[in-house]
Amino acid sequence: MKSNEWEVIKAAKEAGIPDPGFEIDKNTAIVITDPQNDFLRSDGVAWPIVKESVKENNTIENMSQVFKLAQENGIKVFISPHYFFPTDKGWKFGGALEKFMHSKEMYMRKGRLNMEGFENSGADFLDEFKQYLEKDNIILCNPHKIYGPQNSDLSLQLRKYKVQKVLMAGMSTNLCLESHTRQLLEEGFEVAVIADASGSAKLPGLDTFKGALMNLRMITSHIFTTEEFKEALNEAKL
Amino acid sequence: MKSNEWEVIKAAKEAGIPDPGFEIDKNTAIVITDPQNDFLRSDGVAWPIVKESVKENNTIENMSQVFKLAQENGIKVFISPHYFFPTDKGWKFGGALEKFMHSKEMYMRKGRLNMEGFENSGADFLDEFKQYLEKDNIILCNPHKIYGPQNSDLSLQLRKYKVQKVLMAGMSTNLCLESHTRQLLEEGFEVAVIADASGSAKLPGLDTFKGALMNLRMITSHIFTTEEFKEALNEAKL
Amino acid sequence: MKSNEWEVIKAAKEAGIPDPGFEIDKNTAIVITDPQNDFLRSDGVAWPIVKESVKENNTIENMSQVFKLAQENGIKVFISPHYFFPTDKGWKFGGALEKFMHSKEMYMRKGRLNMEGFENSGADFLDEFKQYLEKDNIILCNPHKIYGPQNSDLSLQLRKYKVQKVLMAGMSTNLCLESHTRQLLEEGFEVAVIADASGSAKLPGLDTFKGALMNLRMITSHIFTTEEFKEALNEAKL
Amino acid sequence: MKSNEWEVIKAAKEAGIPDPGFEIDKNTAIVITDPQNDFLRSDGVAWPIVKESVKENNTIENMSQVFKLAQENGIKVFISPHYFFPTDKGWKFGGALEKFMHSKEMYMRKGRLNMEGFENSGADFLDEFKQYLEKDNIILCNPHKIYGPQNSDLSLQLRKYKVQKVLMAGMSTNLCLESHTRQLLEEGFEVAVIADASGSAKLPGLDTFKGALMNLRMITSHIFTTEEFKEALNEAKL
Repeated sequence: MKSNEWEVIKAAKEAGIPDPGFEIDKNTAIVITDPQNDFLRSDGVAWPIVKESVKENNTIENMSQVFKLAQENGIKVFISPHYFFPTDKGWKFGGALEKFMHSKEMYMRKGRLNMEGFENSGADFLDEFKQYLEKDNIILCNPHKIYGPQNSDLSLQLRKYKVQKVLMAGMSTNLCLESHTRQLLEEGFEVAVIADASGSAKLPGLDTFKGALMNLRMITSHIFTTEEFKEALNEAKL
Repeated sequence: MKSNEWEVIKAAKEAGIPDPGFEIDKNTAIVITDPQNDFLRSDGVAWPIVKESVKENNTIENMSQVFKLAQENGIKVFISPHYFFPTDKGWKFGGALEKFMHSKEMYMRKGRLNMEGFENSGADFLDEFKQYLEKDNIILCNPHKIYGPQNSDLSLQLRKYKVQKVLMAGMSTNLCLESHTRQLLEEGFEVAVIADASGSAKLPGLDTFKGALMNLRMITSHIFTTEEFKEALNEAKL
Repeated sequence: MKSNEWEVIKAAKEAGIPDPGFEIDKNTAIVITDPQNDFLRSDGVAWPIVKESVKENNTIENMSQVFKLAQENGIKVFISPHYFFPTDKGWKFGGALEKFMHSKEMYMRKGRLNMEGFENSGADFLDEFKQYLEKDNIILCNPHKIYGPQNSDLSLQLRKYKVQKVLMAGMSTNLCLESHTRQLLEEGFEVAVIADASGSAKLPGLDTFKGALMNLRMITSHIFTTEEFKEALNEAKL
Repeated sequence: MKSNEWEVIKAAKEAGIPDPGFEIDKNTAIVITDPQNDFLRSDGVAWPIVKESVKENNTIENMSQVFKLAQENGIKVFISPHYFFPTDKGWKFGGALEKFMHSKEMYMRKGRLNMEGFENSGADFLDEFKQYLEKDNIILCNPHKIYGPQNSDLSLQLRKYKVQKVLMAGMSTNLCLESHTRQLLEEGFEVAVIADASGSAKLPGLDTFKGALMNLRMITSHIFTTEEFKEALNEAKL
């Protein structure tokens, strides 16, 4: 699909909101948030609330396509996963969805130095993505803890590889993807989003993908679809 | 008004999203973003795009009420303003609304050490608020530069006053207020929002207040209206 | 020993540098950096350069004592470890000791999700400390990557446990301990140091422990020895 | 002078500490901390404690030379000043030198939006530097508040100008210059220091310049003297 098939993108254009554009070059990397079972597998903790958006966007196929295109074009992909550990249960306060995640044991692992039970758990990566994750272009980062990368090493990893421009994809659009986007902007990265390689909660009266798309259109340099990203690679200076 | 008059808040309740609640105590402060003419005065650069939301929410009266209640109850208010300076025009890239703000000279000042022309400019505070701003409970912070407080001293100021819990208000809901909220959460503050003491862009097909309200309901501990904030003060442990 | 047996501490007192003091209370936690074999075991990568300081300070016994006193008094201990992973070898630049650490494969692990070969490696914790590490008062954090906690979740973990005051200990005094101290100060923590539960490189013409002690005395609220820390616990409000 | 005239630099070489080197290119900028009267003018609050080091290093002439060379070569200079405001007196805790600075009203200004009494005050820039400060290559940043740039917009300003490599100079070596250096390293900047365009407290038993030089030699990519910086410009890729 094309990004202008989204009403929000059309409306933004009609409203005259600038669209700075985003040129993919050798200092560009992809950041993928939460490519994990608890969002994307049918028995995942958050699947019931994101499945409608994931199906509409064709998120899993598009994320796979992004991984594949990155690998073929030698573009680095930085994975920012979400894990919780037993000591996180001792936290003394938290916002609404933090309460949800903790009550459902979302992304739960046995310990930071304990991989027991990780494989195929809700915290593990979706099987469809695993073929791409062991490749040389993949950098797995420290887990983030709320929604943004402030408490992980993502930004340092990007800078140590001389990355200046970031394409965002992954789950979920209005939470971790958007918080990552907002943080990377404050740190002086140039950011665009591959929006249909993402998805988020859709419940009656709560279309969070639409809400996120408004914000992301306003704060980033450009919104791509996966198809448009693929086309843009033809003109990329890699 | 009551927060449950907003459809989003009703929908969140029906969807079973937890509502952790927020108790106001002596470690609670208010953070107000961008209480400035370029948003809130009829000749302000962004007034045409936010005026509908500002009128619907009764934002100016509610912000004034928040300032007044804070002063009466000895609650500290931290102001996070938005200023641009001539050297910021040299920035080599930026997202969509950064382009908008720079092209319109929004929040523009002559220099960091130059107050010439500031008074009553778009960067100055709204006249209605000035009676509250010279009081002892007000701490004015370094300006933020994109949307969040990452490049200001807001968080340090809060911590140096032993603040652990924050009530957010100010302009605009989906940009600076939301980015401040997201950052404060990552830094381990407990955060709630006084949502109708805020407002944001509303354009055909782009109701950013509604979008922000979804996100804020999901990530913070509670959504207040100004009226509910006033009621909550009766039970506050100050 | 007493802190005033250190020349630097005496000199600071004579110079009239203020000593704000540090009262241990229920919002106080201990942060320990790098309690790992590569620093503290005789075959560790950095042992040859820190051993003199470690012996002089009696660092291992003092760190053990700090762990023991914390456990007995119910004080939380946050561990900030240092790990490198294979992808970190791809970093395109680094300072002098980053080069040293990478060339020596200091703190090396096989992968973030791979514990193979970790046990008893240079990256593992010193055996003497392991009896304390599985206890309820221990929170292990994401690894830091250069010297400070900016790229870990230490600060969030502290805040989520409502910690406002921090006692620093661990390796090495002028690098990770000092960078942690400096960062925690900027984030609005009140910080003191248990200086002889630490140690650092000592080479001809380069007494880094002494250098660090000067800085730490100037920037923190107080310098304790382990003995003084033990005494202070008698008056602590826990 | 040459950097190898410093004992610490000689000792580091003899100890085999790597010296990665630092090539000046078009993505390189200079960051100068606290070029202000309270450090560098004979009636400045901190002059009595830094004057010995400032004279030994020829700091004022060297800082002037750095400003001049930057201007001649079109290298951007980012100034990170230190200011305190009346509300900062309400801070509820602080480390030793924070107490010192507040008690002496160091860097004091009347308000963030009040320039009254600023000119020629301790917070103002040293007269010798003013001829360079109004030029196009100068970017003045938000003030820092403790010692590092974490609560200013320095890092964002650098990134918005696509700066990846930083040369540090300014006052004082072991406090603001070193905290800036440590923070910039954690954010993935490549950092070197022009060490004799800096100076710091020197009191009986407390040679903080020497202590800082040890740390800076260990954590950065290279230590220049001003003379060596001038020579390096001949081979710079600007």
